[in-house]
Formats: sequence, C-alpha cells, structure tokens
Amino acid sequence: MKIAIAGSGALGCGFGAKLFQQGFDVTLIDSWMTHVKAIQTNGLHIDINGERCHLDIPMYSHEDIPNNDVYDIVFLFPKSMQLKDVLDYIKPHLSETSIVVCTMNGLKHERLIEQYVKTSQIVRGVTTWTAGIESPGCTHLMGSGPVEVGGLVPEGMDNAQTIVEILNQAGLNGTLSEDLHQSIWKKICVNGTANALCTILECKMSSLNESNDAKNLIYKITQEIVHVATIDNVHLNLDEIFEYLIDLNDKVGPHFPSMYQDLINNHRKTEIDYINGAVAKLGVENGIDAPVNQFVANLIHAKENKLDAQ
Amino acid sequence: MKIAIAGSGALGCGFGAKLFQQGFDVTLIDSWMTHVKAIQTNGLHIDINGERCHLDIPMYSHEDIPNNDVYDIVFLFPKSMQLKDVLDYIKPHLSETSIVVCTMNGLKHERLIEQYVKTSQIVRGVTTWTAGIESPGCTHLMGSGPVEVGGLVPEGMDNAQTIVEILNQAGLNGTLSEDLHQSIWKKICVNGTANALCTILECKMSSLNESNDAKNLIYKITQEIVHVATIDNVHLNLDEIFEYLIDLNDKVGPHFPSMYQDLINNHRKTEIDYINGAVAKLGVENGIDAPVNQFVANLIHAKENKLDAQ
Repeated sequence: MKIAIAGSGALGCGFGAKLFQQGFDVTLIDSWMTHVKAIQTNGLHIDINGERCHLDIPMYSHEDIPNNDVYDIVFLFPKSMQLKDVLDYIKPHLSETSIVVCTMNGLKHERLIEQYVKTSQIVRGVTTWTAGIESPGCTHLMGSGPVEVGGLVPEGMDNAQTIVEILNQAGLNGTLSEDLHQSIWKKICVNGTANALCTILECKMSSLNESNDAKNLIYKITQEIVHVATIDNVHLNLDEIFEYLIDLNDKVGPHFPSMYQDLINNHRKTEIDYINGAVAKLGVENGIDAPVNQFVANLIHAKENKLDAQ
Repeated sequence: MKIAIAGSGALGCGFGAKLFQQGFDVTLIDSWMTHVKAIQTNGLHIDINGERCHLDIPMYSHEDIPNNDVYDIVFLFPKSMQLKDVLDYIKPHLSETSIVVCTMNGLKHERLIEQYVKTSQIVRGVTTWTAGIESPGCTHLMGSGPVEVGGLVPEGMDNAQTIVEILNQAGLNGTLSEDLHQSIWKKICVNGTANALCTILECKMSSLNESNDAKNLIYKITQEIVHVATIDNVHLNLDEIFEYLIDLNDKVGPHFPSMYQDLINNHRKTEIDYINGAVAKLGVENGIDAPVNQFVANLIHAKENKLDAQ
C-alpha cells in the first residue's frame, strides 16, 4: 500500500514520519525546494514529543514524482491556498480507488477536491496534532491527536474506517467522527478565534483569556460561526463552545498559533480566507450576516499587506 | 473677560496660547503636575506651525485654582474619560452665564455637561487643529482649523456667535456650524476609522489607503456610523463620506493619529469608548446594530490590556 504526503510541511512530515516508522511505504512530496533537498540529502530530522528521530524517507519535489507511482492513500497537508496546485500535481498519481484524506483547517475544501476524485474517495477530518518547522528538513510534532475523520457520503464510510485503522497503527490516534460536520465547525471556532485574534493582537493563546474584552471578541466571532454552521445542519451550543474555547486557550497556554507564526514571524500570507473569510462568504451565500468575521478577514489581509506578506 | 482652559494638554495649550497672544485673560488648568510645574516655572514653550513662542501664561493645577476666580468662558480639553473630573473641579468657578465650550472628540459629551450647566450655556463643536506634547511644558499646534461650533438649543446661538468671534480674533478660525450634529458625526467617522484602525494595525493614516482590505474596513465602520447617525437626524451620504475619509488619509499622510500616540507610544488608555464604543452603545439604545464598531472598541480595549495601558 503506497501512501503519499502531498504537502510535507510541518504536519505532513509529522504524519509521514509516524507512518514510516510503522513500516508503511511513505513518500513525502513538497514544493519548497530547500526543504525537499535537505531531506533528500540528510533525511528528515524530526522531534516527536521530545524524542529526536532521523528518518530516511523518500522525498520528491512536486515536479519529480516518479511517473509510474500511483498512491493508494494521499494525505493532503498543504496550506489552503496551495490546495489546487497540489491536487493538480497529484491527480496523475491517483487511481479510481485511491483515498484522499483532508484534515486541513478551513471550510469546504471538499468542494475543490470533488473536482478531482469521487466524493466517496474523500476522507475529511480534523486533527489537534500540532507541528512546526525549525529549519529545512528539521521539524517537530507535538500532542497526541486525535485525528477525527469521516466520509462525506455513505459510500465513503469504509474508506474512513480504513484510514482510522492506519492512523491507529501508526500511533496517530485516529477516530471515526460521530458528526464530521460538527467536528469541522468546532475546529473553525478554534481557528477563527485563536488564530485570528492572536495574529491581530500579536499575543499568545492564553493571553486572550486575560481580558473580558478579548473574551468578548471570541464570543462575537463564535456567535456568528455558530449561526452560519446551521447551514450545514450543525447546531452548536454557543455557550458550551465558548467555554470550550476559553478552556482550550488556558490549556494550550503560552503558544503562538500557526497563523501568528505564518504572518508575524515569517511574513507569509495566512489561511484567513478559508476560516473567518469562508464563514462570512458562506453566510452571504445563504442569507446569514457575519460582519465580524468579514471584518476580521479584512483586518488580517490589511496586516498581510502592511507586512508585505508573500 | 476671563477664559479658562480646563485640560491644558496639547490642544488646550495651543488654544490657550493663541488666545493669550491676542491679549485675552487666559488661565491654563491641568492635573498633570509635572506639566503644570514646568509651565509655572519656565512658562509655556510652544511651536505654532513652525514658529517657536515662549509665553508666561498663568497655570494652575486643578487643586489650586484661586477660590474667587469665576470664568466667563471655559474651553474643555481633557481626554474624554477625564471630563467628569474636570467638570467637578471647574463647576465652583462657573456663573449662570459662563459659556462652556466643548470641541472634544467623541459623542454625547453634552449629556454629562448638562448635569453642570444649562444647555444654553454649552457651545459644542469640532476642530481639525492638531497638537502634541513634546515634553512637560513644551507643546506644538499645527494646522489652520477651522473650529466649527454651534449651540445645542436656540437660546444658545448667541453664545456660539460670541465664541466664533473670540476664536477669530485669536486666529483660531472659528465658524458657525451650519449643521452641528452633522459636523460632530462627520468627525466621528474620521476618528472611528483613522484613529481606531491605525492603532489596531499600528500604521500611519496614509498607509490605510494602501490596501483594498483596509479601505474595506473603513467602509464597514463608516457604514454603521452613518446608520447610527440617523438617530440624531443626521443623514450622511455613505459614498461621499467614504471618499472624504480616503482623501483625508492621503492629505494627512504619514501621521500617527492621537489614539496611536496614546496607546502605542505612551501606553495610555484611549478614548475608544467615546468614539466607536459610543456609536455601538447609541445604536443598541435605539435598535440599530453596529457589531463592527463594538468589535473595534473591544479590540482596542484588549490591546490596552495587553500593553498594560494606564
């Protein structure tokens, strides 16, 4: 069984490493040439929850994937705005039965993926594993998951079950989501508050809990997300989810979320259009106003522009 | 005719200096003791549009105003959150005919001032003079005004006319506002966009025009302000006022607005509750939603908290 990691940045390397350690036939693929060359030359150096590992995993640039390679399973781990490019280069390496796993942050990635494979081939999910890149070829993976996954249609449930088993064999803590859409929207609440606000205010997640005003910002963003989620027939309890978010900020503590790392540390464009921006857009499409989420998306873009993010 | 400047910070010193130069009997009053003592000892050093002046103007701390002083005219120039304290200390020095002039930024200051004097004694207005403090006792005044003023009730119009004449004698460019409430709301649009956004994004006014996303933020804030202004029977044209704000950002150029200076440079609490916060509150009181202005107010407060603003 051939597994490809399409988009082998921080989280991609983490998943790839865990699967490779378990003996799976894993191929890493990425477009960042310095990173690709580092792993091709020196292998992947990865710190998994404090344990340093050095793994010689096959690594290809997206332009050099062996022509005849066909992957049974592809984990998609690019930044949201690179998803189309990734699907374009991986498409020739998919069969009619390949499983495409998307646990990326953001809403409605399946709309794009469905243009490349049958809906039943898609396994969608969310994960709370966190990861980072220290330097090209050197990454870390933190946490214990889980990876909650599910099928988008009944015919896709077997594929979801397959992925859960593989994840569990690799110690990645896979679970079948009881309510996939609810899991996705709950993650949107996390990213739409912590990622966005820590990036605007330039603070750690736990700092958001230090003022009632910041908590109020969390509440207002979440209130709109919960409202827009009803479009997907997801009915979150606003007060419960708010309490969950506040708890999470405390638990995660002095951590700068990925959007902060992207924009503030590395002056890279963010995934805001796939989080708060997507909430606002989906709201508009369905007659539900989400002015605060739209404002947050514009604010992050204005900051990207100010910092000349690429 | 005795004139007091109650709150002699940047703009107060500027107005006081111009009036004093013209021969008016001016008294400066302030609560910042270092600044008070500097002016008492060395006089006021002020740069008025590039011309350096040194003026020995009487200066009192709010605790040492001569008991028998009664002021015919009081210009109020504190920060909004200090207005009550200022009115408390100036009240014993007002007569039944004293004129109280308020050209402070923010909404509905008259609600508070009316608890101290008759509405006809209040002259309300707005000004585009700008000012700053280099160090205790050293300030600058820039621009050419105007100072648009008006009465809040028909019986107050003579007082407004008196103030216009005095301002003009002192070269402060006073004009009777044709529509006082419209002038105030237009200024709220300026402060509610440029002050708030430059402070959130930490940028100069002209930088706001550099991205469509920042312009979109200006538009959304203004849209709500224009809507809430209808409560005061003020009907601003959204597209016209938006164009005016964009033009203004270009004209003012690489300038950090006062709220930026307060919070980012000096870690002082801002007047946001009297600008975007007041718009949102007035909206709620009258059944008009202004979620973006409320969000902006909370965002600035969260930033005050982060910077430990005093």
